[in-house]
Amino acid sequence: MLTLLSPLTRKLSAYVALSPGDLDILARFHKRRRSFRLGHELVHEGQSHGSAFVLAKGWACSYKMLPDGERQIVDFQVPGDFIGLRSILFRTSDHSAEAVTRIEASEVLASDILDSFAQAPRLATAVLWAASRDEAMVVEHLVNLGRRSADERMAHFMLELGARLRLVGVGDATGFDCPLTQYHLADVLGLSAVHVNRVLRHLREEGLMTFQKGRVSFDDIARLKQLAAFDPEYLDQGRPFLPAPGA
Amino acid sequence: MLTLLSPLTRKLSAYVALSPGDLDILARFHKRRRSFRLGHELVHEGQSHGSAFVLAKGWACSYKMLPDGERQIVDFQVPGDFIGLRSILFRTSDHSAEAVTRIEASEVLASDILDSFAQAPRLATAVLWAASRDEAMVVEHLVNLGRRSADERMAHFMLELGARLRLVGVGDATGFDCPLTQYHLADVLGLSAVHVNRVLRHLREEGLMTFQKGRVSFDDIARLKQLAAFDPEYLDQGRPFLPAPGA
Repeated sequence: MLTLLSPLTRKLSAYVALSPGDLDILARFHKRRRSFRLGHELVHEGQSHGSAFVLAKGWACSYKMLPDGERQIVDFQVPGDFIGLRSILFRTSDHSAEAVTRIEASEVLASDILDSFAQAPRLATAVLWAASRDEAMVVEHLVNLGRRSADERMAHFMLELGARLRLVGVGDATGFDCPLTQYHLADVLGLSAVHVNRVLRHLREEGLMTFQKGRVSFDDIARLKQLAAFDPEYLDQGRPFLPAPGA
Repeated sequence: MLTLLSPLTRKLSAYVALSPGDLDILARFHKRRRSFRLGHELVHEGQSHGSAFVLAKGWACSYKMLPDGERQIVDFQVPGDFIGLRSILFRTSDHSAEAVTRIEASEVLASDILDSFAQAPRLATAVLWAASRDEAMVVEHLVNLGRRSADERMAHFMLELGARLRLVGVGDATGFDCPLTQYHLADVLGLSAVHVNRVLRHLREEGLMTFQKGRVSFDDIARLKQLAAFDPEYLDQGRPFLPAPGA
């Protein structure tokens, strides 16, 4: 049953047991579904009246442009994630987002959010949870840049991606298909592409993980978690936390 | 009138025009108000059934502990900010928070959030906005660590604090009272205390800003903004964005 649900529904169901009424309202978040080509800019920093999207298939990334033309990738989005939620909550978008692969995504308007909150407060809590979880991931990326070695950063980042994907039914404990380039990894981890290459080789030679031909393989996930001091609690993705009303 | 409101009400009013009914419900977020001494740990990473707080007076900080005992400060909280919102939304708190000064703060329970969302959907949107704004700040701190020079980091961080404080009626364009030590600044900016000292001296000698005797003075705010490429749009604190219902 769960596999028939959209990735967003599946993700939010990790937090609240959604009622049939909640699910009907959530379905409205999926009605304007479109395909976008690789590289399509979905959200533009500084744009007013922007859109948000719910990602159904493929990968996207959110980033900030610096005055010198450099870019800092803040996070990647995988199926079930919101893209550009702040661009409909804020007057102008504080970041940009683009498609990393060909994607399928549904546009969400500010009115969809407001209407759904008015009709389904539990769904509102679940959206707040999803946004807070996104923030918890940005916090970990900040810790990556501020405090972790290059090996630790890579290990932590890949373990996070693996856990996020498993929540929406993609990949498993052995690994996941990953469309990212070494330039993407360099950009999000604050390393040079050459350094990324060296780190990946080192992790492979140590028998911890392999990233080859578009696939991340966890060769020894226990030791990889130990290296990164990876504690997945910040992803908060166990059994539903809020039971069904009356349950 | 606005100055009689709590800092949180004042902040959320920058986003939505809150109705008298919304204000009544928001008042419940303030009913369990207590004082805490400097250094009191309000939220503990890994803790279940934690509390969140609304800060009314003083400063707090949120941080992550690393396995080697090092700490990465993620952000500071000023009056009107939530402390540890994720510790009531998540099964276990993904971060810690402590009082930087003596503070006054009101405890908020998960049920306060759920009940308020059920009764005041516009307030739910405002809380989602506040959480998203917190995320936008963490994104800027990530960009600080990843892409900005030491001078730029300090300038950007102080301009952000100044803007946040002005939203809740503290400080003005000339500066603000700041209880942070050079160790706090080093920790949040990813610099050594010695480097912080050097950066502050440099900014002062350049006539841009001075941090002395617990006060940050913006000596030339236009040039300071230029140095940091500071664009306050990510703080989203103009006139109310969502007008009153029926307005």
